[in-house]
Amino acid sequence: MSKLGQRIDQANVVAAERLMDSQPVLIDVSPAAEAIPGMTPKSILHAGPPVAWERMCGPVRGAIMGALIYEGLANSPEEARELAASGEIHFDPCHHHQAVGPMAGVVSSSMPVWVVLNKSFGNFAYCTLNEGLGQVLRFGAYSREVIQRLIWMRRVLGPSLKKAVAISGGINLKNIIAQALQMGDECHNRNVAATLLFLKEILPHMLDSDLDRSTIKEVSEFISGNVHFFLNLSMAACKAAADSILGLKDSSVVCTMARNGTDFGLRVAGLGEWWFTAPAGSPQGLYFPGYTQEDANPDLGDSTISETVGIGGFAMASAPAIVKFVGGTPTDALEYTREMYEICVAKHRDLQLPALDFLGTPVAIDLRRVVETGIAPIINTGIAHKEAGVGQIGAGILRAPMECFQEALIVFGDQYG
Amino acid sequence: MSKLGQRIDQANVVAAERLMDSQPVLIDVSPAAEAIPGMTPKSILHAGPPVAWERMCGPVRGAIMGALIYEGLANSPEEARELAASGEIHFDPCHHHQAVGPMAGVVSSSMPVWVVLNKSFGNFAYCTLNEGLGQVLRFGAYSREVIQRLIWMRRVLGPSLKKAVAISGGINLKNIIAQALQMGDECHNRNVAATLLFLKEILPHMLDSDLDRSTIKEVSEFISGNVHFFLNLSMAACKAAADSILGLKDSSVVCTMARNGTDFGLRVAGLGEWWFTAPAGSPQGLYFPGYTQEDANPDLGDSTISETVGIGGFAMASAPAIVKFVGGTPTDALEYTREMYEICVAKHRDLQLPALDFLGTPVAIDLRRVVETGIAPIINTGIAHKEAGVGQIGAGILRAPMECFQEALIVFGDQYG
Repeated sequence: MSKLGQRIDQANVVAAERLMDSQPVLIDVSPAAEAIPGMTPKSILHAGPPVAWERMCGPVRGAIMGALIYEGLANSPEEARELAASGEIHFDPCHHHQAVGPMAGVVSSSMPVWVVLNKSFGNFAYCTLNEGLGQVLRFGAYSREVIQRLIWMRRVLGPSLKKAVAISGGINLKNIIAQALQMGDECHNRNVAATLLFLKEILPHMLDSDLDRSTIKEVSEFISGNVHFFLNLSMAACKAAADSILGLKDSSVVCTMARNGTDFGLRVAGLGEWWFTAPAGSPQGLYFPGYTQEDANPDLGDSTISETVGIGGFAMASAPAIVKFVGGTPTDALEYTREMYEICVAKHRDLQLPALDFLGTPVAIDLRRVVETGIAPIINTGIAHKEAGVGQIGAGILRAPMECFQEALIVFGDQYG
Repeated sequence: MSKLGQRIDQANVVAAERLMDSQPVLIDVSPAAEAIPGMTPKSILHAGPPVAWERMCGPVRGAIMGALIYEGLANSPEEARELAASGEIHFDPCHHHQAVGPMAGVVSSSMPVWVVLNKSFGNFAYCTLNEGLGQVLRFGAYSREVIQRLIWMRRVLGPSLKKAVAISGGINLKNIIAQALQMGDECHNRNVAATLLFLKEILPHMLDSDLDRSTIKEVSEFISGNVHFFLNLSMAACKAAADSILGLKDSSVVCTMARNGTDFGLRVAGLGEWWFTAPAGSPQGLYFPGYTQEDANPDLGDSTISETVGIGGFAMASAPAIVKFVGGTPTDALEYTREMYEICVAKHRDLQLPALDFLGTPVAIDLRRVVETGIAPIINTGIAHKEAGVGQIGAGILRAPMECFQEALIVFGDQYG
């Protein structure tokens, strides 16, 4: 093997070790403006690689319009659309602010966010709180119900969880993910167990706080009533791990995969902030009654941060029941995971898959192997309606587009060759 | 096929339908003396078929001694042993009182018990509340710590849960079991998800009750801190289903499998209360540090009510992670379930196994098929130390003894032939 090849291999082992050694700990819940570096009252963060208003897809536009109404910057969808198009709003990817967001991934200044510290490497990661399924902002809906829920989350949910998290002294999210993988979750589109494990962790601290009983009941029922509640915690945990390799010299390990609903974006550890993009793909999936693939927006959201660090689609062997949500069969789920070992540097020491005889999850995607094998990373995902204002219409599975891996490998070769 | 064979087949379909149609609902928590028919202050119920004090195994003796101390009927282990041997205490199997108990299965008059109603058929079932693992009465321990915990369960846990259950209006246990089977539990020796699902159900009702916060915290932490907490609820649910076929004419479906640590006992629907017994087997398993198979008591407990109605060992395909507790590999777990279809009448409509492509659990064991195929029901189980006073030392897997199935089939032939 060439000297360069050896250097890359060594850097990739370091990358895999960092991803595995990461210890994401939930330490706070705060308004985005207080927690996230560089947020202003007129900032709106969104999922995926950079994209201007003109090229944004329907659900991202819808979510931005909803956020502007929620922030009191606009009084109607029409006003919001005008303001968004006016140039006054500062749009930026979540990923440029140590943050991630599911689907549209829209974060505005007063939204409460999870604050996660990677205790092993000292970096922080942020993500909003999960709203539930159906008519929700992240799928592009902005009805009164959506805005009212967001206001309740700002007034009640965020501050309540802030108190409980403070009393907890920090909640280790990796432990929850490791347990949930033993309980049929893959922690991207199935978070049934992880959500209950989180409830179990947070509950005693809520009871120890000065929150009144009715608030504790309201908050705990909101958590336990939403099987996707843990998703945003899982994402923040994965982002905290992924950022530990961002800019790692010589490494060809993928450190970001994210979609804005128009483009799929890829970043590689050794190439730092450089985005490689390709048109966002179309998931094959299961649709809610009344909808078909015709209605679907292309692939959307930062939640591919799960697959980036080896869970989600990569851990589907652990979650046979997820196929009722995203399609396919339990055998497919096993095969997806088995295939992903082909493109990954390591098997995770701490995250194990019982159905594969406790093999570690495939972790640290090597750009070179993706291109050499022609095996694109598997992703499972929610599906948003392509029009602003509708919401979720299904869930499915797809591959990351090979073009941006090929392009990234050429640039990687130029940089290091 | 003979006319008799057809009649038996028809009765067995009825049996399978009843097992599947059963809707066990938790409706109350009450002291055994108030809830269980025929309990007196000097009654002690135990697991398995009938057995006199002289033939009882160490852990059952230990649990009985502990229960007599707990009830204030004896002041020391010596006094308890004398009283137990004196003939003054009325020993009876749990199964003769619509009850079941894990391991020693000891129930005394003041212990709180789950009250479960089978809404489809109107019969009740009872089971004590789970104490946790290690030094606990059901494994034959009777130290001060064990007795103190039982007193706390009588004073605090039972009455608190009684209030919450009353407010709930009833909690459907079959729903919890069905969900838990999608989450890596088999609901006998793995109840990790089921316990959290139960916590999620009961929590809002505790918060709605007049229980103070510190009690809610104490009770919810006791529940969430014991991954086996749901076991006794699962057992009561299974007993409620199994009793719906007890005495069902013409049916060769097994309606009871239970162990008292000396004998394994079998009952068959069409033969009613008739027990067929054989020496209790020895589980192959994993032992806690410091213990070996030498220390193990033979197979013990009513918890085989799980396997009797098609979960537990029969549903291990769903619970690959359980092999870390009971031994074997995830492949073995799949094979156990696959094999059990050979001896069962039906695949459960409502209880599905994602890992087997959502096949229903094997349900309604046909005595004839067990004998014809030579396939004995698989059981997973906790392992108690053979001496009174020690407690749990491991967990493992074994087969029900074929002799009592053979004997039962001969008697079945005599009765119906």
